[in-house]
Amino acid sequence: MGNKENMRRSRLKIIPLGGLEQIGLNITAFEYEDSIIVVDCGLSFPADDMLGIDLVIPDVTYLEDNIEKVKGFVITHGHEDHIGALPYVLRRINVPIYATRLTMGIIENKLKEHELLESVKCEVVKFGQFVRLGAFNVEYIKTNHSIVDAAALAIHTPVGVVVHTGDFKVDYTPVFGDAIDLQRFAELGKKGVLALMCDSTNAERPGFTPSEKTVGRTFDSLFQEHEDTRIFVATFASNVDRVQQIIDTAYKFGRKVAVEGRSMVSIIETAINLNCIHIPENTLVDLDQLKNYPNERQVIITTGSQGESMAALSRIAYNVHRKITIGPGDTVIFSSHPIPGNEKPVTKIINELLSKGADVVFQDAHVSGHACEEEIKLIYTLVHPRYAIPVHGEYKHLKAQAKIADSLGIEKENIFILSSGDVLELDEESAEVSGRVPVGAILVDGLGVGDVGNVVLRDRQHLAEDGIVIVVMSLEHESGELVAGPDIVSRGFVYVRESDELIEEARSIVDVAVSACLERGITDWGKLKSATKDALGDYIWKKTKRRPMILPIIMEV
Amino acid sequence: MGNKENMRRSRLKIIPLGGLEQIGLNITAFEYEDSIIVVDCGLSFPADDMLGIDLVIPDVTYLEDNIEKVKGFVITHGHEDHIGALPYVLRRINVPIYATRLTMGIIENKLKEHELLESVKCEVVKFGQFVRLGAFNVEYIKTNHSIVDAAALAIHTPVGVVVHTGDFKVDYTPVFGDAIDLQRFAELGKKGVLALMCDSTNAERPGFTPSEKTVGRTFDSLFQEHEDTRIFVATFASNVDRVQQIIDTAYKFGRKVAVEGRSMVSIIETAINLNCIHIPENTLVDLDQLKNYPNERQVIITTGSQGESMAALSRIAYNVHRKITIGPGDTVIFSSHPIPGNEKPVTKIINELLSKGADVVFQDAHVSGHACEEEIKLIYTLVHPRYAIPVHGEYKHLKAQAKIADSLGIEKENIFILSSGDVLELDEESAEVSGRVPVGAILVDGLGVGDVGNVVLRDRQHLAEDGIVIVVMSLEHESGELVAGPDIVSRGFVYVRESDELIEEARSIVDVAVSACLERGITDWGKLKSATKDALGDYIWKKTKRRPMILPIIMEV
Repeated sequence: MGNKENMRRSRLKIIPLGGLEQIGLNITAFEYEDSIIVVDCGLSFPADDMLGIDLVIPDVTYLEDNIEKVKGFVITHGHEDHIGALPYVLRRINVPIYATRLTMGIIENKLKEHELLESVKCEVVKFGQFVRLGAFNVEYIKTNHSIVDAAALAIHTPVGVVVHTGDFKVDYTPVFGDAIDLQRFAELGKKGVLALMCDSTNAERPGFTPSEKTVGRTFDSLFQEHEDTRIFVATFASNVDRVQQIIDTAYKFGRKVAVEGRSMVSIIETAINLNCIHIPENTLVDLDQLKNYPNERQVIITTGSQGESMAALSRIAYNVHRKITIGPGDTVIFSSHPIPGNEKPVTKIINELLSKGADVVFQDAHVSGHACEEEIKLIYTLVHPRYAIPVHGEYKHLKAQAKIADSLGIEKENIFILSSGDVLELDEESAEVSGRVPVGAILVDGLGVGDVGNVVLRDRQHLAEDGIVIVVMSLEHESGELVAGPDIVSRGFVYVRESDELIEEARSIVDVAVSACLERGITDWGKLKSATKDALGDYIWKKTKRRPMILPIIMEV
Repeated sequence: MGNKENMRRSRLKIIPLGGLEQIGLNITAFEYEDSIIVVDCGLSFPADDMLGIDLVIPDVTYLEDNIEKVKGFVITHGHEDHIGALPYVLRRINVPIYATRLTMGIIENKLKEHELLESVKCEVVKFGQFVRLGAFNVEYIKTNHSIVDAAALAIHTPVGVVVHTGDFKVDYTPVFGDAIDLQRFAELGKKGVLALMCDSTNAERPGFTPSEKTVGRTFDSLFQEHEDTRIFVATFASNVDRVQQIIDTAYKFGRKVAVEGRSMVSIIETAINLNCIHIPENTLVDLDQLKNYPNERQVIITTGSQGESMAALSRIAYNVHRKITIGPGDTVIFSSHPIPGNEKPVTKIINELLSKGADVVFQDAHVSGHACEEEIKLIYTLVHPRYAIPVHGEYKHLKAQAKIADSLGIEKENIFILSSGDVLELDEESAEVSGRVPVGAILVDGLGVGDVGNVVLRDRQHLAEDGIVIVVMSLEHESGELVAGPDIVSRGFVYVRESDELIEEARSIVDVAVSACLERGITDWGKLKSATKDALGDYIWKKTKRRPMILPIIMEV
């Protein structure tokens, strides 16, 4: 294409609205002239310092500001970090959603819960199908992942094709449906691909991720080995293929299966309705029915493999489950690896299960859903993009993929590690980060969306660290004299009965400080409060080496 | 020994006062008639739910109650989880301490900091030496570990010998000093050992732990590979052998070395004074001097390999270190593995370093200091104990060692996994858990030891989760009438300016509730407070689905 023509043409903008700084908030805007489409709309779970927060969702101010351009959400697959923020974001940006069958089934469950199903347009897309959205034509391509119906997207734009892999792996022998459509990747590559946005999660790992089918063989031998015991298998709620394989093995060994854990029950029901899982007759039973069979004919598939404290496995391990008591003669198979950060809670549950006498199997019964180094190389080689934009993962993962792209001959200046909010402008001629749009993480706490910000979080951290000491006093309106207090109340500071003396002394310290102010004619509440804070803060630090939050409250009577 | 004689004889008691439920609190009492000795006296770091807590130390009420029996502390090695609680415990139980040279050097540093050095008797013990303490004769046996001068103890008692390995590995080619004294273990085993208390930390890992020397070879090749860059090596402050090897490699490559991080500087100084580390002349320099050399001649050994937020490496990664700026042209070698639970902070630091342009090496530059399965088998086979008491580690580790002991022919009923406080009574004839003594974890927060208990922790968790809403009001003394307030102040709840309406409505809800009480003649403060709590709690839950702590304060004027 001539340079002259190009001058007149607009460029494509790719704008991650979440991502690097907010892992899990997978949401990327593609903008061309007056069209915007959005790939995925994920949520993430709070970092350790986000006390009391339930969920984190992306700030979509940029989309709101350009609402007239936004044509729709194109979703790659049904995991929380790709769809979870939809119910929140759709309230502000009500545009159509496009997704494959099971993905849409899971989205619709969510929208139903949030009473949004009626008001949002949901369109199921088949693999190979194109969705025309303004300047974009989005093609759905079959991939493999740890959830059925995962898709890559080939986004056809006026300046070229961008291939977005979504989360994927290459599985030549998947449990359900076809292998990843490598031929289509090759075909697109042959015709010319502008940019590849490829999953980086496992970019640090050499080799290939094994097929999901290998886990089935592991189940066969584990069930053989533990044929005399009741068997629990803990895995991810959304891993329908895994559940399929557990059920297949259970069926082979003449066992009945119950599923335990709200989220898993819901997804399995959806998968059954959509024919994404095949259950031999009379194999799946209710937990209550399961009791009618001897232990060695029971299998319980459960959530909580990440040590989540409210999930079924945790309740079972700590013996607070209403229907299940664990003990000797039980085998618990972890069909999962701990996600980084979850090692400690997972280990706690394992220790708990072992101490109850259960046997715990913690190896070989899991494979990843993400492509390793050789698979990433395969996709790069098939697609042969001009630009590489590693996606999904922490900085070290993106960096690892950048190294792979580099090793495959992609020029260093054509590899982009984007931060949230970066605007990458590109066409056949060149690409560069040309600006930034506002982005951020919005905290969800209970019903509140965004009403907990940095000030509140900082206060929560302060309160968590050393508690609060409240000083109340009443001043007489006319005279400004102290007529009641100062009284001191504390929470989360020290156990008060043991520290009456401390509190008593603190009271007199405040009394002296406030009286000194009042005697000098200082009645300004701000000044009285800071005098209180200073005097009390110093005293407490000297006595305890702690810095509780000090909160003076003055009443006027 | 005849049964008859045995009947007249007392039995030995082994009582873990920390351990299983309080990982890190390694402290075990051995009691025989009127003699008690205590092996180790460790501290642990707070669990995630111990908000604001600095340290955890063992409850030694049992020792205090039997203070006249307690002969001394016999210490295996100088790690925090084996010596850290000494300064706190010695304040209550001032008895002599026995330890090897470097161990004692580290203990003395601690006692100096706590102004206890003058008042405690510290006796340095050599390997092969016996310490006579009442009914016990304690023999120090050379082992290998990730700190120099680690010892196993052979505790000779009237009913037989108990071998306690401490933390250990088998290193045939240690960096400093001799290999573990396997001959002495064999000799003891040959004569007959009553019980073996063996380190379980790595019992789940097959094979052998490689020699510390292998890390030295790794440093050689890493320094070769990165010969053009400044090199940082992050490792544990107390791993003197590791520091020795880094310095040796630096010397080979003509580099100067500076040590950064308070705890590491202190231990290296102690090691130098005690001749436990050999530093080639002019190799170790101050950080300020290091700047006079070009980058490729600099090595900085630093603390913070576990992602500790206050340690040197963290300050370097986030560019808040006063003297060091990291960037392209720097290589950071992690000579450590993350301790379970620290994966997240370690990864955060790696991402931070990478994003600053530094190269990060995170493999092969570490070996464990603990024995793997085959080493444990070796010790069991040499010592050939009648009873096995796995120590050190979580339940799953103890269980794994119990399986190893079982596989070596030790009878199941002779293997004991003890909980803190269990009293194991044993002699040549039999062993059983015969009772319990009071134990517990005491929380240290600032200067306070034990003044933060469950009530305070529960409050801190509550405050951390949803913050606090304080309601203050003034009642007139005579009439009981409301003369000021209710006023509402919140912290850590919601950002108030956005929620003025919420607070305003809350105020009127409380007003109605309190006025209703007063009108009905209810002036009891307890009742007024609970009416306030109920009304406000319901309202806030309905509006926000949150449950902040609600704290009504009434003043009388």
